Amino acid sequence: MCETCGCDGEDAPRITLDHGRTVTLEQKVLARNDDLAGLNRTWFAERGIVALNVMSSPGSGKTTLLERTVADLGPERPISVIEGDQETLLDARRLTAAGARTVQVNTGAGCHLDAAMVAGALTALAPPDGSTVFIENVGNLVCPALFDLGERARVVLMSVTEGADKPLKYPHMFRGADVLLVNKVDLLPHVDFDIDACTTAARRLCPGLEVLPVSATRGDGLKTWYDWLTDA
Amino acid sequence: MCETCGCDGEDAPRITLDHGRTVTLEQKVLARNDDLAGLNRTWFAERGIVALNVMSSPGSGKTTLLERTVADLGPERPISVIEGDQETLLDARRLTAAGARTVQVNTGAGCHLDAAMVAGALTALAPPDGSTVFIENVGNLVCPALFDLGERARVVLMSVTEGADKPLKYPHMFRGADVLLVNKVDLLPHVDFDIDACTTAARRLCPGLEVLPVSATRGDGLKTWYDWLTDA
Repeated sequence: MCETCGCDGEDAPRITLDHGRTVTLEQKVLARNDDLAGLNRTWFAERGIVALNVMSSPGSGKTTLLERTVADLGPERPISVIEGDQETLLDARRLTAAGARTVQVNTGAGCHLDAAMVAGALTALAPPDGSTVFIENVGNLVCPALFDLGERARVVLMSVTEGADKPLKYPHMFRGADVLLVNKVDLLPHVDFDIDACTTAARRLCPGLEVLPVSATRGDGLKTWYDWLTDA
Repeated sequence: MCETCGCDGEDAPRITLDHGRTVTLEQKVLARNDDLAGLNRTWFAERGIVALNVMSSPGSGKTTLLERTVADLGPERPISVIEGDQETLLDARRLTAAGARTVQVNTGAGCHLDAAMVAGALTALAPPDGSTVFIENVGNLVCPALFDLGERARVVLMSVTEGADKPLKYPHMFRGADVLLVNKVDLLPHVDFDIDACTTAARRLCPGLEVLPVSATRGDGLKTWYDWLTDA
């Protein structure tokens, strides 16, 4: 049996790509990004700021989770948000309304936030010392995985509507996760989703990964998520 | 009122990025891709093959829609599938089991299919003259929008669990769509989703866009989808 996907054999032709020059270019871009991410990490550490890189597909519930988190924890601790989207101020407005200090980064055709964008946003955001900064990345389960932003930890979300096979099909994102929130568990009665299979798949890529089932709309599991945040 | 996102004003700081050198590099890559896509388009036309580029976020239901389509229409017309995923043969196995001739393209760290990958896959696939070829792109609502594959039309899916604001937040994908399938309408009673607002948002980017509400699991709207396919 194939260890990667659990299939019984190669029953369809497969083409695995060798990127060649693309990879070389990409490595230069990533090396420069890693340098800037290191500067961000030092900047956060010097101020006692906990920065968390929040990533998922579009529509997995990142913004709803952060709205709820800001509303519930904001009175106890200052929370700021860097909002990444291709276009619109919609999410920044939601987080501002929930009580967070917020900066929107619109990437245009861009598919991810990088360390330079975060550095620029921090200048505008000016988060207070000892605070929490959520960096809500562009909704994309692929590209953001490659770009270190200088965060303390990577928070990956997926929703139960997306299917339990997603960790195996998009391994880069799950391999680097510090915690996986499986959101929208309120929809479990209505969809075909095996949370144990999903957890097993994610932990095959990232042994020991903490997996938290939550519903950002109904509130399930948020206490555990807030405990995780306190320890982050 | 802002015409882009319908907001009332700039109530949060916004950083809009000027990509500079990145854009220049990207333009070279895209120009080369466009040349190859033109060759694919000629190849399809010479054989009377209808090629459709199917795109969405991960978990919107592309594979389930194609499984159902192959099972329902396969007896009447030959259907082949080029399956794009970062890893695994899972989707190719599902489509093969449904009755389609299938080739899996694994992109590794790559975030989209490009015209060269499709050309390579076609050699292995050898679709018959006069047939239909679905190209199921990597699950990503961002990057695949930029890469012409030589397709006849672009089929964009989103699911009702993802939120009606997605067209405005990821405009490139919706701007180039030929049809938008709003999937998982069986979940409408359980989620907060305004299909009229979603349609309005999508048509603001792509005037006259055909929007088809469907449920690939329950079967709602598939007759309309099959009619669309017949006319494609």
